[in-house]
Amino acid sequence: MAPESEEVSVPIVKMQAFGERLFLALGVPEAHARVTIETLIEADLRGVESHGVAHLADFYVRRMLRERINRTPRIQIVSDAPAAAVIDGDMGLGFVVAHRAIDLAMEKAQATGVGLVSVKNSTHYGAGFHYALKAARRDMIGISITTGGNIVVPPGAKRPVYGANVISVAAPTGKDFQYVLDGSTSVVAGGKLEIAARRGASIPEGWALDESGAPTTDPTVLSRGGGLLPLGGSPQMGAYKGFGLGIFADVMSGVLSGSGASLALPPTGAASHLLAAIRIDAFEPTREFVRHMDVMIDGLKAAERQHGVDEILIPGELEARLERQRRAEGDIPVHPAVIESLRTAAEKLNVPFDIR
Amino acid sequence: MAPESEEVSVPIVKMQAFGERLFLALGVPEAHARVTIETLIEADLRGVESHGVAHLADFYVRRMLRERINRTPRIQIVSDAPAAAVIDGDMGLGFVVAHRAIDLAMEKAQATGVGLVSVKNSTHYGAGFHYALKAARRDMIGISITTGGNIVVPPGAKRPVYGANVISVAAPTGKDFQYVLDGSTSVVAGGKLEIAARRGASIPEGWALDESGAPTTDPTVLSRGGGLLPLGGSPQMGAYKGFGLGIFADVMSGVLSGSGASLALPPTGAASHLLAAIRIDAFEPTREFVRHMDVMIDGLKAAERQHGVDEILIPGELEARLERQRRAEGDIPVHPAVIESLRTAAEKLNVPFDIR
Repeated sequence: MAPESEEVSVPIVKMQAFGERLFLALGVPEAHARVTIETLIEADLRGVESHGVAHLADFYVRRMLRERINRTPRIQIVSDAPAAAVIDGDMGLGFVVAHRAIDLAMEKAQATGVGLVSVKNSTHYGAGFHYALKAARRDMIGISITTGGNIVVPPGAKRPVYGANVISVAAPTGKDFQYVLDGSTSVVAGGKLEIAARRGASIPEGWALDESGAPTTDPTVLSRGGGLLPLGGSPQMGAYKGFGLGIFADVMSGVLSGSGASLALPPTGAASHLLAAIRIDAFEPTREFVRHMDVMIDGLKAAERQHGVDEILIPGELEARLERQRRAEGDIPVHPAVIESLRTAAEKLNVPFDIR
Repeated sequence: MAPESEEVSVPIVKMQAFGERLFLALGVPEAHARVTIETLIEADLRGVESHGVAHLADFYVRRMLRERINRTPRIQIVSDAPAAAVIDGDMGLGFVVAHRAIDLAMEKAQATGVGLVSVKNSTHYGAGFHYALKAARRDMIGISITTGGNIVVPPGAKRPVYGANVISVAAPTGKDFQYVLDGSTSVVAGGKLEIAARRGASIPEGWALDESGAPTTDPTVLSRGGGLLPLGGSPQMGAYKGFGLGIFADVMSGVLSGSGASLALPPTGAASHLLAAIRIDAFEPTREFVRHMDVMIDGLKAAERQHGVDEILIPGELEARLERQRRAEGDIPVHPAVIESLRTAAEKLNVPFDIR
């Protein structure tokens, strides 16, 4: 397994400018290019390297070249109620569609206390936490749910038939981090296998089944028809909960938006989402909420630790620490294979390559 | 391990009348007694024996005798917005408080599309699915979240410090069952250990830690300061997701309602909840929603099965099948130890015992 230190540092401002140029060369509007690259970089800043610029060339640029992502979408509200809406993303970049949807959810929450926006005809929106965190920074609880590729195997089945659907939640605290849950409803996200493959590592037993339905430790198994197990892994260890949460995500995004569950989406990269905002002071004063969050966090962190454990980490804590450090340094770490994918994309699109 | 067939059949109507008499003898209003016993019996009808009449005497009656449950609560809306509210349950029976809260959530959803009601100063409300299912039967997506006892160990810790918080979701389908997710955010619910203990069985490794923080297979471990592991079990298998979901439940119920997270609740049986209703036709016509649900269900059930697996089960399917069968028979199965606990309660409260 190659060491992580193989990764190289790329200045944030250079990556932002380079990424925007790639999209501009593809005919993407400037505001769309900016928010998409900012969002990808936020993933790398917070250590979510499976959903950052590693996907820029080989996923988003490639899909746009294959006309699977609409460069100039007409994003529309197709159903509207005081606390609810459906947005049609017109197959635009998922980042752009999801930012629009969480903004609408926050507007509705401002008026009624809660806003739920279900989204159809969108595409991959990166990591889910960005949109939840956007609401948490405005004194709301943010929820972001999305369908993933159909790479998860239901309990008792052999092959993957439904999505690696992701549930993300964020809430403000009085600490130097927000509570941020961001997890697929499978044991791990597909991106974790990509990382292992890039490093030449195997994966632990219990993450995935091969194409015949047998346990495997091969990180490349998804490309050959294998699949991930639902969170819980086996029925005895709670796989029906992971499966049920995966269906929940499908219900809130694909089914509620009218495009259908992950299982029924065409295999061309369409995605459905749910973006929700809950305005805290519609329930209680925000300072009270924050005080209760901090009491909870302090109590959890004070728990007696297992031998060798330095610290009980709250979901979102480590990521915020990394983000502060990397913003201070002004760099994100990028794997050499990702650098090469960006160089190739720059050559193809005739864009200056200057991030190294 | 004692066989399940040791359980005896008790007629539903006899159990309903007997249970109501127990509560009436305690001074509980008739409507409160009725809805509480109906809800407990619904759990037994659907095979959720960990949350049915097994708890009636040893949990609810006992807590009421110890004045930990208010027999005549004044349930109040203490904060109100078009799509949001906080209810103070005045330490009444959780069943009564939660039915009131989901009814209010459905009213709000009728008006705005969505209703979120966070509840403080309530008590144990049984299984979470009842309230979610109530909304699903009225063409809404129902969500029910509750804090549990502080019996879960965060990743890296030795001892339990936060709640076995439960997330329940239900949605309508065109089938003879609703989609119903109902699961604690721990590997298993505490009730699963009670069942194993009642049968003299051990529990699988990976469910719980003993009071020293070591793995255990002893089902009585919770009574000695041991704790359950979060869904996922180990960090490698996704325990941070289970932990993050447990915090999510705390945020939506205890923190948002203003009473604080499970960790901060006094150990006297107070509970916080969230009840939410999402009106489907605020998003799309209900018939379209149901059609997409059925396509998803058909696709999942058609998945190629592992050797020895007869059927891919959708969450809620088996429970609905059991309920139809048991309603047709007119009986619920009850363990002899539970029968004895009910006999003892009847004697103590001077109520005729006629369920056997």
